[in-house]
Amino acid sequence: MTESKNDITLSDFQQLIREMYIEKDLARGVDGTFMWLMEEVGELAAALRSGTLEEQTAEFADVLAWLATIANVAGVDLTAGVRAKYGTGCPGCGQLVCQCSDAEKP
Amino acid sequence: MTESKNDITLSDFQQLIREMYIEKDLARGVDGTFMWLMEEVGELAAALRSGTLEEQTAEFADVLAWLATIANVAGVDLTAGVRAKYGTGCPGCGQLVCQCSDAEKP
Repeated sequence: MTESKNDITLSDFQQLIREMYIEKDLARGVDGTFMWLMEEVGELAAALRSGTLEEQTAEFADVLAWLATIANVAGVDLTAGVRAKYGTGCPGCGQLVCQCSDAEKP
Repeated sequence: MTESKNDITLSDFQQLIREMYIEKDLARGVDGTFMWLMEEVGELAAALRSGTLEEQTAEFADVLAWLATIANVAGVDLTAGVRAKYGTGCPGCGQLVCQCSDAEKP
């Protein structure tokens, strides 16, 4: 894996969100935070239907931020999760280019 | 931003999901893919309520993967979005440690 100067690692992003919001996030807890994630998911859906590419991009960022927030509160390491589940290829067939049948993996 | 050998960048992750699934993803399109994201969000909610840390971690990875999939189909660069929205601090107050009032930012 290579990193250009414009890249951001998943762990840096999770840490950035932690530094910005962890105090409020811990006070709110997972349940309260999940509602906010859902609101952003709704905004993402709306942007995908009728927003500009710029608006869509911003909504993806917000959903990622709330996911990172919940992960912080729950004590989940996003990088470890991604690496364990997808670091060695498709979880279904183990191939880098998924070969699962359409019935198994959409 | 520093990167250890276990880190993964957002752009590498988006590219990994692209390589694994882009053919099926393009055929399914954004609308069809969004349903799968919702299914994974539901599984994440269930894991947060009653799953182990390992199960929760895996569900976060799945939600991230479907988000990356939709971004790939929509032509959205997740890294650019995160950097534009959160790269200079909280979008609300501009501070690295959020100082927004609770009424403004939960």
